[in-house]
Amino acid sequence: MTANLRLDRLPRTVELARAADGAATLAYVDQRLLPGKLAIERTADWGAVVDAIKTLAVRGAPAIGVAGAAAVALWAREAAGGDTGAGEVSAYRAALERTAEEIACARPTAVNLRWAVERVLGRARVALDGGAAPAAVADALFAEAKRMEAEDEAANRAIGAHGAALLRQGSRVLTHCNAGSLATAFYGTALGVVYAAAEQGKIERVYADETRPVGQGARLTSWELARAGVPCTLVCDNMAASLMAKGEVDAVIVGADRIAANGDAANKIGTYGVAVLARHHGIPFYVAAPISTIDPAIADGSGIPIEERDASEVLPVAIEGVDVWNPAFDVTPAGLITRIVTERGAFEPDKLVY
Amino acid sequence: MTANLRLDRLPRTVELARAADGAATLAYVDQRLLPGKLAIERTADWGAVVDAIKTLAVRGAPAIGVAGAAAVALWAREAAGGDTGAGEVSAYRAALERTAEEIACARPTAVNLRWAVERVLGRARVALDGGAAPAAVADALFAEAKRMEAEDEAANRAIGAHGAALLRQGSRVLTHCNAGSLATAFYGTALGVVYAAAEQGKIERVYADETRPVGQGARLTSWELARAGVPCTLVCDNMAASLMAKGEVDAVIVGADRIAANGDAANKIGTYGVAVLARHHGIPFYVAAPISTIDPAIADGSGIPIEERDASEVLPVAIEGVDVWNPAFDVTPAGLITRIVTERGAFEPDKLVY
Repeated sequence: MTANLRLDRLPRTVELARAADGAATLAYVDQRLLPGKLAIERTADWGAVVDAIKTLAVRGAPAIGVAGAAAVALWAREAAGGDTGAGEVSAYRAALERTAEEIACARPTAVNLRWAVERVLGRARVALDGGAAPAAVADALFAEAKRMEAEDEAANRAIGAHGAALLRQGSRVLTHCNAGSLATAFYGTALGVVYAAAEQGKIERVYADETRPVGQGARLTSWELARAGVPCTLVCDNMAASLMAKGEVDAVIVGADRIAANGDAANKIGTYGVAVLARHHGIPFYVAAPISTIDPAIADGSGIPIEERDASEVLPVAIEGVDVWNPAFDVTPAGLITRIVTERGAFEPDKLVY
Repeated sequence: MTANLRLDRLPRTVELARAADGAATLAYVDQRLLPGKLAIERTADWGAVVDAIKTLAVRGAPAIGVAGAAAVALWAREAAGGDTGAGEVSAYRAALERTAEEIACARPTAVNLRWAVERVLGRARVALDGGAAPAAVADALFAEAKRMEAEDEAANRAIGAHGAALLRQGSRVLTHCNAGSLATAFYGTALGVVYAAAEQGKIERVYADETRPVGQGARLTSWELARAGVPCTLVCDNMAASLMAKGEVDAVIVGADRIAANGDAANKIGTYGVAVLARHHGIPFYVAAPISTIDPAIADGSGIPIEERDASEVLPVAIEGVDVWNPAFDVTPAGLITRIVTERGAFEPDKLVY
């Protein structure tokens, strides 16, 4: 095992809980404050969870999925107990559907969010069809959202085991953005592979790309790895090529926000460039993501919607006459991906089982 | 001509001047203050010029060459007039050699600095060998440094003309770092090609890589292009690959800090990665630099010293347990370079004439 590996030092990123009075709350790490401050926010307000997703307080495809499901559960609890006419079942149902849609649209690229919301919504429909009262529906949704939280961690641990088997002793891994414990309920996808490999003593060092403009690598991955005791070196995004040319990178492992049926994978902007560089240097390029990231409805990467964010993320003080392009994601074609690692195994992209 | 092209709005980056009382001063743009403020500093102190080079107030291989030559001239003027024993010619000569060496070492990678210092030093040696007094030597060095300033602009205009001939109508050019007017006495190398092509109406748009960690693209290239009236879009370094995949880039043009005899070119960190991406997408990759950037003493890129700078440039507030690697340059192998454009013409890297 990597000396000093301490996964117990990592916080749970999103965690639904029930107080003694029956009220449900979601606790989440406000990732905007990292690495300076580890702050756990707690809210019973589903709208606050949507805001947390939109403002990147909670980010990472699996984490926003878990948070989205929790937001639906929080709404259901609030609506079941209120005096706003939600007691009338058809109105409750319509409001539930409307709210779920709003939550699912908080961010466009990661499919896990819609997948998770649809899953709890399906559970609610079944309960309502069976004649359940709003309070019982709320209980069912709370239980479902908690199950998804646990399943997320279990999926990550399985991804970790499958991915670790691909790495050799003494591996130096490059990663981009944060597909770590902070991007999931717990443990992480790409960093889940790192943690599982570190438990087997296989990790010499992780190189973390800074990941402009939001800095998920600089602020989150480096913090998370250092806290967990994994040796970590931060580089600017434009330094990865030099690391590869120096022979310092044995494998690249990244997460994904949506994987098309053909294996094309959308992930944080910059991932595609890293994949091209890895190919040029003959370095394996692995994508680690739960099956919920796969969107069979989309044939290839060209159909994945790419969120464009505000220019101020790139250039906080505008320069007169200067335009800014700020896409939050890019698409790596399946042909540049060595393996897609899910909880089911490590697959060649065109032989993905889901 | 590109509508609104206004090169007269660009400042002279480094400019040596003589006051009525005979005192020499160097005026330079303090580039640390851009894009917020265009401030021209003026100093008669050679040590202040060395500081300006070390702190990146003056940066860009040709500009630090011109500034380095000017620093030697400033020293010579000061020493010629002082009471510090410099009147004694052998002591003056030794001090000149010592000072020139200190100036040449202000930054290690760009060879133009040493080349420029050696050139004025050679002029001083000839003058001293011919029996010139320190005051006459100072006059000669001032004249030589002014000549180099003018030659730098002339070389850039020639580079621009040769490079513009490589571009077709409606070109969208990607550049990395700032090899613009701000990186030279005036006009620029890579952006010199852009300006010359814009005068011919060939430039549709320039994409400027942000260029972490110092942000020469975000702070300098975008400011310079907007001020000169060239349409400009700023992207983070990790977005260049997506631009290329979308077919938005017709050519990449960058500068260089040192070119080895075999055509391998050192330039700002990230350039090598852009070259790999350009090759992957079948986009021509041009290096624009004056002949003074070529170092025939170095056989290939492996011999070029790469400056490593402080971690705080990448991570202003350190994170406990997180290492940082911060090389300021990388080497693009000749095989990835379509043409090296100098004042003599546009050459295949292995057929470089100098």
